[in-house]
Amino acid sequence: MAEKFISERNLRFLLYEVFDVESLLQYPRYADHSREVFDMVIDTAMKMARDLFKPVLTEMDRKQPQYINGEVKVHPQVRTVMREAGAGGWIGATFDYEYGGQQLPEMIGAMTPTAIFSAANYSASVYPGLTTGAAGLIVSFADKAMQDLYLPKMMAGEWQGTMALTEPQAGSSLADITLTAEPTEQGYYKIKGQKIFISAGDHDGVDNVVHLTLGRIKGAPAGIRGISLFIIPKKRIEPDGTLKFNDVNCAGIYHKMGYRGAPITQLAFGENDDCRGWLVGEPNKGLGYMFQMMNGARIDVGVGATGIASAAYYASLEYAKERPQGRRLSSKDPLSPQVPIIEHPDVRRMLLFQKAIVEGSLSLLMQCSKYHDLEKVSEGEKKEDYNLLLELLTPVAKTYPSEMGILSCSAGVQILGGYGYCDEFPLEQFYRDVRIHPIHEGTTGIQGLDLLGRKVIMKNGRAYKFYLSEVRNTIAEAKNDPDLSLYAQTLEELVEKLDEVTKFLVGIATQGNPERFLADATLYLELFGIVSVAWQWLLQALVASRKLKANCNSEDESFYRGKILTCRYFFAYEVPKAQALMVRLMNNDGLTVDMNPAYLD
Amino acid sequence: MAEKFISERNLRFLLYEVFDVESLLQYPRYADHSREVFDMVIDTAMKMARDLFKPVLTEMDRKQPQYINGEVKVHPQVRTVMREAGAGGWIGATFDYEYGGQQLPEMIGAMTPTAIFSAANYSASVYPGLTTGAAGLIVSFADKAMQDLYLPKMMAGEWQGTMALTEPQAGSSLADITLTAEPTEQGYYKIKGQKIFISAGDHDGVDNVVHLTLGRIKGAPAGIRGISLFIIPKKRIEPDGTLKFNDVNCAGIYHKMGYRGAPITQLAFGENDDCRGWLVGEPNKGLGYMFQMMNGARIDVGVGATGIASAAYYASLEYAKERPQGRRLSSKDPLSPQVPIIEHPDVRRMLLFQKAIVEGSLSLLMQCSKYHDLEKVSEGEKKEDYNLLLELLTPVAKTYPSEMGILSCSAGVQILGGYGYCDEFPLEQFYRDVRIHPIHEGTTGIQGLDLLGRKVIMKNGRAYKFYLSEVRNTIAEAKNDPDLSLYAQTLEELVEKLDEVTKFLVGIATQGNPERFLADATLYLELFGIVSVAWQWLLQALVASRKLKANCNSEDESFYRGKILTCRYFFAYEVPKAQALMVRLMNNDGLTVDMNPAYLD
Repeated sequence: MAEKFISERNLRFLLYEVFDVESLLQYPRYADHSREVFDMVIDTAMKMARDLFKPVLTEMDRKQPQYINGEVKVHPQVRTVMREAGAGGWIGATFDYEYGGQQLPEMIGAMTPTAIFSAANYSASVYPGLTTGAAGLIVSFADKAMQDLYLPKMMAGEWQGTMALTEPQAGSSLADITLTAEPTEQGYYKIKGQKIFISAGDHDGVDNVVHLTLGRIKGAPAGIRGISLFIIPKKRIEPDGTLKFNDVNCAGIYHKMGYRGAPITQLAFGENDDCRGWLVGEPNKGLGYMFQMMNGARIDVGVGATGIASAAYYASLEYAKERPQGRRLSSKDPLSPQVPIIEHPDVRRMLLFQKAIVEGSLSLLMQCSKYHDLEKVSEGEKKEDYNLLLELLTPVAKTYPSEMGILSCSAGVQILGGYGYCDEFPLEQFYRDVRIHPIHEGTTGIQGLDLLGRKVIMKNGRAYKFYLSEVRNTIAEAKNDPDLSLYAQTLEELVEKLDEVTKFLVGIATQGNPERFLADATLYLELFGIVSVAWQWLLQALVASRKLKANCNSEDESFYRGKILTCRYFFAYEVPKAQALMVRLMNNDGLTVDMNPAYLD
Repeated sequence: MAEKFISERNLRFLLYEVFDVESLLQYPRYADHSREVFDMVIDTAMKMARDLFKPVLTEMDRKQPQYINGEVKVHPQVRTVMREAGAGGWIGATFDYEYGGQQLPEMIGAMTPTAIFSAANYSASVYPGLTTGAAGLIVSFADKAMQDLYLPKMMAGEWQGTMALTEPQAGSSLADITLTAEPTEQGYYKIKGQKIFISAGDHDGVDNVVHLTLGRIKGAPAGIRGISLFIIPKKRIEPDGTLKFNDVNCAGIYHKMGYRGAPITQLAFGENDDCRGWLVGEPNKGLGYMFQMMNGARIDVGVGATGIASAAYYASLEYAKERPQGRRLSSKDPLSPQVPIIEHPDVRRMLLFQKAIVEGSLSLLMQCSKYHDLEKVSEGEKKEDYNLLLELLTPVAKTYPSEMGILSCSAGVQILGGYGYCDEFPLEQFYRDVRIHPIHEGTTGIQGLDLLGRKVIMKNGRAYKFYLSEVRNTIAEAKNDPDLSLYAQTLEELVEKLDEVTKFLVGIATQGNPERFLADATLYLELFGIVSVAWQWLLQALVASRKLKANCNSEDESFYRGKILTCRYFFAYEVPKAQALMVRLMNNDGLTVDMNPAYLD
């Protein structure tokens, strides 16, 4: 199997050269850190990925979690991963010192290790990742007593954290959640209900599982206005500190196409009437709280997809360089030696596609991460602006890498031909693994509705306008670079068209036709993704072009020229796809709204 | 699991209403047949699919072929399928009476049952399908003695037929085949060499395996001009009629992502110096002969992909009609009951996409099949014209259904959300199974080179010109239908643009730059696919529109309106994608030709 699964050089390029993570050091929050610290974080994450994650990538796929007598048995490496993630401070790396965290910037403490770990072994990466998200909710919204009870064990990797939203009858429709919580005089709630598709919802790699769970207090209003957030541990902590089973039963696990190293569970709460939950924050505000974790989880999905696509890219690149087959079309002598398939333009096109998706997606995710960091250190209106930008880009940063990650891994399979379809190479696993991403943490359809139906129009379009100005800043800069001015112009026209499409659609909304407004929201999201990643490629090319104009060594030169080439690829092959989407989006014919579904039979 | 896997109504629509298979009855070759016979063929194939193929769809995936002590053990149903396919006359259904065939038209005897069987269980369908192809080669090119020796057993389903092309060191590059054949005085050749990725290359569901094998006679010219075709049975037939092991060893099978019901084998010929092969036809003409089987196999790949996508469509359609989740955007009352997800426009869009791909692909394949039938009954220049059309369309009819079938099954997975990813529903299997199709029988990259580099320019573009006139005939007819004239106009413009692109690319070729000419041949193939399927949708809509204008019952009305709706979908959502491809194809920048591959690192 290919050794390389992610480019450290590219991570450093994004961190130091494109997004200037060192500029955060000026803020008191990060004053203790330095570039040396950041470098050490990258080096350590790479070492962990190589030593702990990568070696069990295939094995965790082949030896799936087992459900035996109500217990879930996972690969023994999971326990090691969780403990090492805890011991190394990875689970709470971005948390405040007062909660035992290290106050690292998101770019360094979250984005970078998540990308590295998921490229090495996506299934293994979700155990600590989910625990970070759940612990983060406790930090933000639980009271001191709960924080003291749960955070140390979770951050040490001894207890697993989960997010428990989905229910059998509700699926994506969170308004229909029915898990019930009955108040008691002792302060806790008696819980009854079921959850499905809960990642890492039960397993023997940890000593306890802490479910951050959405439910409904008896008598709460219907719909999303009656949803509260609870902590429901698998084992509750008795006054003497011992753990007692809290009537949270794992009813089964799903057998999945991929992402097989992590158990996705069905959970039954309170089957024996002895399940206790503790309210987090105020009643009926649960969905709002959960969205903090959910937004983080959506970004993590984008990163996970990018990580898998990155590993697929390097695996197919290695194969393409080593596998001789055929000859260049310009020399057809059958007695001449065969050339490596990387010499064939069609193979190069597929490799450039993969590189464009992987590095374009990672750049967009890093951009989001930087907004997150800037939000943390900003005040007042600026803080809100960065928050809005992050909110706007979250569905895009979740979906583009996920949907395009599938196509990117598929291109990797194709480069290997028959071998890509067989399990002696890792491509087929990547192809199966990556398919989960447009599904979990909100399907692509849900993300489209979120982007167009909520984020673009919220606060009178403020986030959207700020986004356009960010993109236009990059365009303005690139126009001054003669090597990039053509791409700048193309992106400028593209942004104009996006704005035209947006106004057209919002116009439909104001005419009071929500179904027509949102009918093609998924396509709008796809368009938004192309624009955003084109922006990120221009941004990367700008830096690369600047570096090339200064003196740089030959290795750097090759790296920067690769960036310019891939930017060229993106504008030549990917940007034109926006045209088709715009044609459709400007056609308000209500095709899918007004149709008779019986015609589908 | 959904009961329905293919629409009989749609098959009859294509056969009788669009392509008028009954018009073939006027030719002596088919004079014995009638619509009743054709109907019986369809009914019987459906019954076999339901009784033999569908029940073991999941099981054949879960219990993969086993390689034990040099033998390949497959699901016991394989033997039944082969014997029933033999007993029912399916293997030689289109062959001449004199070879034991039934002289059924391709549309009825090949296309229809292949579509039905592969929709029910693709893996099971390839065993008889490959045997048909191999037997067809023997019919066309082998001498009477060989025909008498092999055909009866193969057509009875007692012996498996294969096509053995790929070698480890050559892959797609057939010019580099090295399997050697040394002439002997006894008339047979002594064979030595290896083949890989041979479908159904060895298994215990038959009593013998007959490999139609490409190899090189000692001293033959290098490259494709030195390739000959041999029959190499696993067990050779002794003068007394007994079978004797012919030193064809199965060295192993591949473990694959999907398509798991059929063993893909590695074969070693002549390891013990006792492998005999018999030359078919003339020496050094093997590749040309093999292309008869290969072309058929490529069409079968298109059909197989369409079959899987069809099963996926009906499975996700059933789910969408039954699964309640959320509410229409126009009624957000959380107390109102949830609606089935088919009410959501985004789900409808995905279903329409599936329907458009499945029925558009099947129509294109049926069109090819009709050309094949017309070729058989025509004479002189007309015969050649139909052959050329079929040659031109083969890479398109292989690739469009394969590539779009993947996306179509993926849409099916997405409609089921989390359940789509889990193995309690069949979607995840369809998604894995269908991924083989852009790989086997020539990858998509190879098909692109074949279309643009050979088929479009052969005989001075004669096939291509005939194709354009066929499409334009449909356009002219549709222009007279006020309900379709807009689509006719769109397609007319599209064909103009295709022609412009083609001339531009051929212009590059004539400047002597084959690499630039063919650099984006895959994209050209994609464009050609969109044009061809748009044509097929217009053709189908034409018939539907005509029927709607006459009187028809309400069931028929719903069916025809579904056709018109899906045609509308195709022109609204799929046709615009051609624009992006044309933009790229008209840009002769040599991006993938001139680039430095080191930039990919």
